[in-house]
Amino acid sequence: MPELTTIGFDADDTLWHHEKYFVATKEQFVTLLSDHADASRVGQQLHDTEIANVLHYGFGVKSFTLSMVETAIAVTSGKVPAPVIASILELGRAMLVHPVDPFPGVRETLEALRPHYKLLVVTRGDLFDQERKLAASGLLGYFDEIEIVSGKTRLVYDRIFTRHGNGPGRAMMIGNSMRADVVPAIEAGAYGVHIPSEHVWSMDLDDDPRDAARFKRLESISAVVPLVTEIG
Amino acid sequence: MPELTTIGFDADDTLWHHEKYFVATKEQFVTLLSDHADASRVGQQLHDTEIANVLHYGFGVKSFTLSMVETAIAVTSGKVPAPVIASILELGRAMLVHPVDPFPGVRETLEALRPHYKLLVVTRGDLFDQERKLAASGLLGYFDEIEIVSGKTRLVYDRIFTRHGNGPGRAMMIGNSMRADVVPAIEAGAYGVHIPSEHVWSMDLDDDPRDAARFKRLESISAVVPLVTEIG
Repeated sequence: MPELTTIGFDADDTLWHHEKYFVATKEQFVTLLSDHADASRVGQQLHDTEIANVLHYGFGVKSFTLSMVETAIAVTSGKVPAPVIASILELGRAMLVHPVDPFPGVRETLEALRPHYKLLVVTRGDLFDQERKLAASGLLGYFDEIEIVSGKTRLVYDRIFTRHGNGPGRAMMIGNSMRADVVPAIEAGAYGVHIPSEHVWSMDLDDDPRDAARFKRLESISAVVPLVTEIG
Repeated sequence: MPELTTIGFDADDTLWHHEKYFVATKEQFVTLLSDHADASRVGQQLHDTEIANVLHYGFGVKSFTLSMVETAIAVTSGKVPAPVIASILELGRAMLVHPVDPFPGVRETLEALRPHYKLLVVTRGDLFDQERKLAASGLLGYFDEIEIVSGKTRLVYDRIFTRHGNGPGRAMMIGNSMRADVVPAIEAGAYGVHIPSEHVWSMDLDDDPRDAARFKRLESISAVVPLVTEIG
């Protein structure tokens, strides 16, 4: 029996683009408010509101849309006209229908791994929107199980890799977020594979984990098959 | 081996009050807009927006909050002042921290069933908020598994009762929503038990199912233990 039996993948910015839509929407938001507020303050205030609101709302586009509305009211001292708020709701809506194109190499990687490993998606965010993206990606058929969770902790990885595999010791988690995908998976006893993405949200940054034996960093998803072949 | 091995419970308005907070918030919303719009239109417009937005946003408090903001802009023809929108965000926030008190009889019922059956929660809505409520309810320890889903269909019940039990044929689903808890569970082959609640959202109404053999209606959760004892 091979050492590895189960491989988990993060979804957003690991299987397809995601953060770039947030970055683009934030720019549109700043432009939208440019007649009503000091542009230099708007970006920072949105960032702070977003971080604070994760505690109330969790992750995802609906949470982010509510943060944009709240920020618009705050930075204009309650003077933002309602039609601007209507435009903010439209910005949020547009994020919920953006195309979901897998990164180059994703499909081939999943195709190659599928006969030999149990493949999971472990993703955080909004249940409704994440299910929409998985369906739109055309990748759903490659995965044995989909786990959409409110937060990614050591305990969550322990539970998921025990429920769907042979425990974290024989599992690997692959993702672009050091803090959510790599560090807690290694703490649970799994391999943690970091594939850096072009854009990274500030809440997803973290130091490299101290347990270097189970930590790997790859340039792209196409390096996953050689890595798992090496591990066995 | 008994016929029944697995019992699923809906959460909102089955284990604790939920819809009454929506009803109360809707009243506060109408009052909030009373200086800016015709009150008789506001309630109907919110209802229509809510139904339409389930397709974009899914279920839950964040979806509902976004619908309130959208409605406020529409019914005032874009004239609602931003501070009123700030108050709407507050109304939504308050719903995310309301107390979660189990109905009378819930704890005793779970206590009695727990040694003999696998107990599940199968609930729809917002992942983050549903997890918060389960933790706040103090009931988490009674359940073997929690399934938070974006929609409750025949296929969803089939998958859940197969994954966590001995298939829908040996399972029972208990809830207050005919359309979400009872009808699709019976279609999957399970028992569907309807416990009507004081307030019912219009999208949760449905006719009694045609397969009467596996359909039961109880006055309260305290009648569950006698029913499952009878079934075996």
